[in-house]
Amino acid sequence: MTASLSDRLSAYAAVAADHGLDAIALVPGPNFTRALGHSFMSHERPFVLVIPARGPAAALVPNLELQSWDLVGFDGAIFDWRDQDGYDAAFAQLLAHLNITSLGVEGQVMRVFVHHALLRAQADLRIEDAERAISALRMIKTPQDIAAMLEAIAISERALTHTLERVRLGQTEKEIEQMLIQSLFAEGADDLAFPPIVAAGDGSARPHAHARHDYRVKAGDALLLDFGARKNGFAADITRTVFLDHVTDEGRAVYETVLAANMRGLEITRAGVTAHEIDDAVTGVLEASPFAVRIRTKTGHGLGREVHEAPYIMRGNHMSLPAGTVYTNEPGLYQIDNFGVRIEDDVLITEEGYTTLTSFPKELTVLKC
Amino acid sequence: MTASLSDRLSAYAAVAADHGLDAIALVPGPNFTRALGHSFMSHERPFVLVIPARGPAAALVPNLELQSWDLVGFDGAIFDWRDQDGYDAAFAQLLAHLNITSLGVEGQVMRVFVHHALLRAQADLRIEDAERAISALRMIKTPQDIAAMLEAIAISERALTHTLERVRLGQTEKEIEQMLIQSLFAEGADDLAFPPIVAAGDGSARPHAHARHDYRVKAGDALLLDFGARKNGFAADITRTVFLDHVTDEGRAVYETVLAANMRGLEITRAGVTAHEIDDAVTGVLEASPFAVRIRTKTGHGLGREVHEAPYIMRGNHMSLPAGTVYTNEPGLYQIDNFGVRIEDDVLITEEGYTTLTSFPKELTVLKC
Repeated sequence: MTASLSDRLSAYAAVAADHGLDAIALVPGPNFTRALGHSFMSHERPFVLVIPARGPAAALVPNLELQSWDLVGFDGAIFDWRDQDGYDAAFAQLLAHLNITSLGVEGQVMRVFVHHALLRAQADLRIEDAERAISALRMIKTPQDIAAMLEAIAISERALTHTLERVRLGQTEKEIEQMLIQSLFAEGADDLAFPPIVAAGDGSARPHAHARHDYRVKAGDALLLDFGARKNGFAADITRTVFLDHVTDEGRAVYETVLAANMRGLEITRAGVTAHEIDDAVTGVLEASPFAVRIRTKTGHGLGREVHEAPYIMRGNHMSLPAGTVYTNEPGLYQIDNFGVRIEDDVLITEEGYTTLTSFPKELTVLKC
Repeated sequence: MTASLSDRLSAYAAVAADHGLDAIALVPGPNFTRALGHSFMSHERPFVLVIPARGPAAALVPNLELQSWDLVGFDGAIFDWRDQDGYDAAFAQLLAHLNITSLGVEGQVMRVFVHHALLRAQADLRIEDAERAISALRMIKTPQDIAAMLEAIAISERALTHTLERVRLGQTEKEIEQMLIQSLFAEGADDLAFPPIVAAGDGSARPHAHARHDYRVKAGDALLLDFGARKNGFAADITRTVFLDHVTDEGRAVYETVLAANMRGLEITRAGVTAHEIDDAVTGVLEASPFAVRIRTKTGHGLGREVHEAPYIMRGNHMSLPAGTVYTNEPGLYQIDNFGVRIEDDVLITEEGYTTLTSFPKELTVLKC
């Protein structure tokens, strides 16, 4: 096993020990990729890495993944299974080998069929949701992580520039979304970080809208684009809202309120701030405005290998945020049947304050198109 | 509630009744989308639709999705929750409202944090994995489903044509993958059905390979492309393997063996055939060849809203396949450190036999590039 693989697995062993658990189980997803340094697809086949608090790790591997698994350099026990045989025997062998009574799992990643297979193999196994502690290992980004995120963001911002240059009145939301997606790949994205949101007019008032084939953008519309590239395993997540042809006084006032909230969040960001304090400051600006009834979301979320990860930037989350955390600062105001505005930056917390990894301009923009 | 929504939900109520369960729970994913006629993203927020065997459905909805949820036309009880309050109270209200003792869930879709939230709300709730019965409702495709799949496949095949025209010796796997992805979106894909596999030379021997930045394709390589567009909610999944510049006798013999296996699977396909029979026929051709040790996978899987769904085409699965089923026929032979060949069609089962939805040529192709 390479030294770095061994080191990475040790961190999960420490999580198990710290939480009084005999072991941690990882399944394909962001923690699995981080732990192993290789990514695997998760489909209908169970694939589980178990890292005990003490002693060597073990893995349950679909037989057809064994050739790819060899590249990992894993020297623990491997229990493979073939489609024609099913996986229950492999789970039984894995758990007999491990001799554990409690297991921490990723509650946001592991699916119920794996949970049930574990319990079929060992009915008295205590399975705890250790998502928070496991994923916390991803919270402080390494310089390599930051470099990958900056590349994903640069791709995303170039794609946004090219797309806004080509927006014309009368295009459908779907047409604009397709321009954006093609630009993302043309600029070097490995993948989309998530299905982009391209929403205009009343569509912009729905936080998770789908681009419509039958809505043509018109003068006066707010046009909201929330999207990101994925590059080298890391995600960008940026939102900008522009106005087409002209902006009403109401549109301008709402926009300036959201921007003030976004800026207020940046101002108080530095190592040691809590997630609650950021959301309280950002949401406080919105609440103090004439548009308080248009608040629908918390301020943001952590960003890294996953688009949504810890820390969640919301009131009540009193987690202190260390330097190296990256979060999204994305206040918005949404009025159904009217329009919505969201402005989202990706923010790196530093000892002295913050760096916004996103650098696309945020001044109110009226596109003459 | 629209008549069609009511009809669709009734089908899940019938599944519950047939399996002696008080209710079925769906979470965002392919069944949720099919049931509601709208798709929702699944992130860190629980979002659950419960359809009892008898009586009206109920839903637990993240507050920020309520505006989108309104478009569904759902008239059952709704229990929404806000980020700042957490979701445990909403689960408690939902289960108090439902008054059930057993619940069938989608084991391949629902994640452990939802499972645990359900049990926190009602410790004696019996949660069963009803994945097979729930997803079986998607197995027989409607004419609209088939039309969407044909469109996804046509996009995929046009992208393959454009990509193969531009392959040149000395390009990296990653460069070829990027050409393929850009072509897919240029041809009208809504999304990628899955991260494409573009693998040449020894990479083609790994069934789930990742495109390499540092491998340049060379004369004599096998080049395997396994990919698909997503369109209107449905996935294409096609694989072709070509040889670059020239092909060895071994390459030709392996290719003809895989093609014969693929064709043998088609020959025996008609309504009423079992998954076992198809895999047995296809794998039997590979086993009877000099390359039997290179077999690594079963014949294929169902295809529709998900890239991998029921029925799984493998020995031991004696499920009889009705007309309207779509499956992938994708035999392959893989020799580590040498090369691999896979040929994959998307096959619609009919009363009289089959229709291959994929139509890209399968004759051995040597690209002069």
